[in-house]
Amino acid sequence: MFVQVARAITDDIRRGALQPGDRLPSTRALATQFAVNRNTIVAAYDELVAQGWVVTRGAGGTFVSAELPERHVRDVRAVPDARDVRAARATRAGRRGQGAAAVRGVAARPGYDVRVLPATSVPFGSAEMLYHLSGGVPDTRLLPSAMLSRAYRRVLRSPAGRAALDYADPHGAPRLRTAIAAMLRTSRGIPATADNILITRGSQMALDLATRLLVRPGQTVAVEELGYRPAWRAFEEAGARLEPIALDGSGLVVDELAGVTPRCIYVTPHHQYPTTVLMSPARRMALLDRARRERFAILEDDYDHEFHFEGRPVAPLAADDPGGNVIYLGTLSKILAPGLRLGFVAAPEQVIDGLARLRTIADRQGDQVLELAVADLIEEGELQRHAKKMRRVYEARRDALVTALRRELAGALSFQLPAGGITLWAKVAAEVPLEVWCERARARGVAISAARDFALDGKARPYVRLAYARYRESELLDAVRRLRDALPRGKNSTRLAG
Amino acid sequence: MFVQVARAITDDIRRGALQPGDRLPSTRALATQFAVNRNTIVAAYDELVAQGWVVTRGAGGTFVSAELPERHVRDVRAVPDARDVRAARATRAGRRGQGAAAVRGVAARPGYDVRVLPATSVPFGSAEMLYHLSGGVPDTRLLPSAMLSRAYRRVLRSPAGRAALDYADPHGAPRLRTAIAAMLRTSRGIPATADNILITRGSQMALDLATRLLVRPGQTVAVEELGYRPAWRAFEEAGARLEPIALDGSGLVVDELAGVTPRCIYVTPHHQYPTTVLMSPARRMALLDRARRERFAILEDDYDHEFHFEGRPVAPLAADDPGGNVIYLGTLSKILAPGLRLGFVAAPEQVIDGLARLRTIADRQGDQVLELAVADLIEEGELQRHAKKMRRVYEARRDALVTALRRELAGALSFQLPAGGITLWAKVAAEVPLEVWCERARARGVAISAARDFALDGKARPYVRLAYARYRESELLDAVRRLRDALPRGKNSTRLAG
Repeated sequence: MFVQVARAITDDIRRGALQPGDRLPSTRALATQFAVNRNTIVAAYDELVAQGWVVTRGAGGTFVSAELPERHVRDVRAVPDARDVRAARATRAGRRGQGAAAVRGVAARPGYDVRVLPATSVPFGSAEMLYHLSGGVPDTRLLPSAMLSRAYRRVLRSPAGRAALDYADPHGAPRLRTAIAAMLRTSRGIPATADNILITRGSQMALDLATRLLVRPGQTVAVEELGYRPAWRAFEEAGARLEPIALDGSGLVVDELAGVTPRCIYVTPHHQYPTTVLMSPARRMALLDRARRERFAILEDDYDHEFHFEGRPVAPLAADDPGGNVIYLGTLSKILAPGLRLGFVAAPEQVIDGLARLRTIADRQGDQVLELAVADLIEEGELQRHAKKMRRVYEARRDALVTALRRELAGALSFQLPAGGITLWAKVAAEVPLEVWCERARARGVAISAARDFALDGKARPYVRLAYARYRESELLDAVRRLRDALPRGKNSTRLAG
Repeated sequence: MFVQVARAITDDIRRGALQPGDRLPSTRALATQFAVNRNTIVAAYDELVAQGWVVTRGAGGTFVSAELPERHVRDVRAVPDARDVRAARATRAGRRGQGAAAVRGVAARPGYDVRVLPATSVPFGSAEMLYHLSGGVPDTRLLPSAMLSRAYRRVLRSPAGRAALDYADPHGAPRLRTAIAAMLRTSRGIPATADNILITRGSQMALDLATRLLVRPGQTVAVEELGYRPAWRAFEEAGARLEPIALDGSGLVVDELAGVTPRCIYVTPHHQYPTTVLMSPARRMALLDRARRERFAILEDDYDHEFHFEGRPVAPLAADDPGGNVIYLGTLSKILAPGLRLGFVAAPEQVIDGLARLRTIADRQGDQVLELAVADLIEEGELQRHAKKMRRVYEARRDALVTALRRELAGALSFQLPAGGITLWAKVAAEVPLEVWCERARARGVAISAARDFALDGKARPYVRLAYARYRESELLDAVRRLRDALPRGKNSTRLAG
């Protein structure tokens, strides 16, 4: 209450209704006028003195500070209007805990110019959709929350955990850097030590930091066409010119880089995003060769290394990089939980240190408690066991989706069995009007992504992406049936649906 | 082991020792040559087939893929050198878990140009220092790790917590936005609703995002001289020209902004960083007026709002901002734990949405588990109780430091009792050679910051900052005695020490 009285008075000073040097009413008089306890007024005056708005001259009374700049008088009220205070009190009673401030609200528009940024599509929150086959997200029902909870508790109870609550190394927790380096050496063939590792908030931060380190306005960044839009947004925000490089059945068409000489190229060679194509060894060698000759960086986003079902995961470009051209981006979002945000970069130490310096600007450091908890999970092998389990589950889901598609949508979709990843890329038959189908599918509760969603040139192509990891086999079957029912009823409709 | 054999073969292909179309030795022959089990060689060949390096022609044998680009032959060895493999194996036995990769290591230098960034001073890790009176960090011994641990567990066990592991709103968890808005309304007079709030990773991310939203290369950002270097680094990284604005006993000398018309100004009006001076009401009104007239933004960093000991905390600029010029930055790092990284921005909704869009580029979203855990702590009042407790502890420490300084260093330091904050700003007597004293203090295990550390112009001034929150009363007394003993023994030495 006294805060509201104090505010009413400062508002009057600001409006000019109370001028520098003016004497305030006695606390007793004001208490009577507002019908509040006198102590409330005393507290308000004390507050105003502490803040420097008013001064007391002992028994002489309380005065508006003479040091305040004079204002134009817009209002003749010499004391705060009791109605304002009552209105504030009434509002407060109505919305408990909101206080006088709720009466005003923050300004609707800023008092300075703000550029308008394009919206970025982040897959969350559209609860009305039954099946989100559009976003490549894991099944949160399978995420190891009990395991995580135990790991947090272990860390917070340990002396190291208490120390982790303090400011720390922007490179990340040393234990986690060591654990990740060991994991990269043994399971991915990347010859990293802890000094080559930076821990980030998911691979998006890694991308953004690398972009800020490397790319100046007007420089060229080569990207895959089709590709990953959130990465492009980071390049564009840095002022880069994007140069699309085509894909074919062997992955990136490296020859298209002739004459481009980019500052860097962003690639997803393992399961290309979104087509899931594996980059062939010949193309890999050619890309690494070109990067070495032309001294550009390769941002290799190995976003779903763990989810490879046919044979072993293919070694990343970073495993064959004596020239130091690859900046390798990995993430634990897909096997652990996207909501936790944990990723990493592997690169030459000089690059890691540059990224860490930028990181102190971006958010100073990571969450040490989370980093130590995850280091624990890796050291104990719990994370690896969980990844193995998820891989089996997702492989079964891929197979269930493929079976359902072949039965229900054989005429409409054709595809190759994806060797990995958590999505399937399918060609849509020429007879199917893709945009209409997507629209009708949404109306039936199934969101799928058309190729246009991944196109830098914004052009349509007859492909769709089906992200299956999030749903159980029975759910996938239901989703596929809805997709079948959503097929536009044209002249060929009976032939299209399986 | 088989990974090393496969690597030896791909190395030979890359070197040109094995050419496209070449036939590989039989698995049996190679097993004999390497003195390993034949299954190891079979596994290695399988791996190479899966990766596309080699092809099998049934009983015809295994061949280097004809699709690989031909290389210049630099080496005549037709099969991998068994010595390489043995060396790798020996190394592996020596350093368990490191694998073949340890032999090579990531390239020491990148294969592209990397700009070198200035180092940023982050206060961590110098364990050899007994007392860090240089960094304004809280006492980790007082941080509420048990409370946090319980909050994490509650979240991870709840259905909402499981959902929190998924991708989510880049603005932050809705419950935390609502809780922070209520806290700002009731305890700071800022009329915010949840729509006016963005949750960030500490105030550094808020600063960086606001800078990226507002500042283009060549624009002017006004800053306090003396001030907070990590903020300046964010402005400089965006290409801003920094314009220093002087301080006096009433805070920022707002008149110095005449003719500057910056894009924005960065200020710490509550307890100015590092001088702890409170900005007077007259200066506040003048700054807000000028910002409205000239349409620039005020980045108000209220980094230690909770730690005000004399009277109540003074209302932020954001509480008096009908024009929408203030972007208010707050943090929970100081009351909760710096290592967790949790801060927030309050601003007009249009600004918040712009920041959220940039945030999807920077790191996509926050840690949902942490955000819900802290929302819990605020809703239950636990955070507020903890802040109150910390305030009492730090006030007692401030008083202990002041008593010790007056007794031990009265001749060397003079200061006003800081009304709040967790640091003390003191003037150093003219007779004391400040740099020498700091040096000698470090040798005695006490790090203090001289004014130069906060100076944009890099000039020395006779002031030091003593950050006391981290240490108990007895420790502070010990630290002050060490500072006294470190005073250079000059002609006035006896007079200087107490």
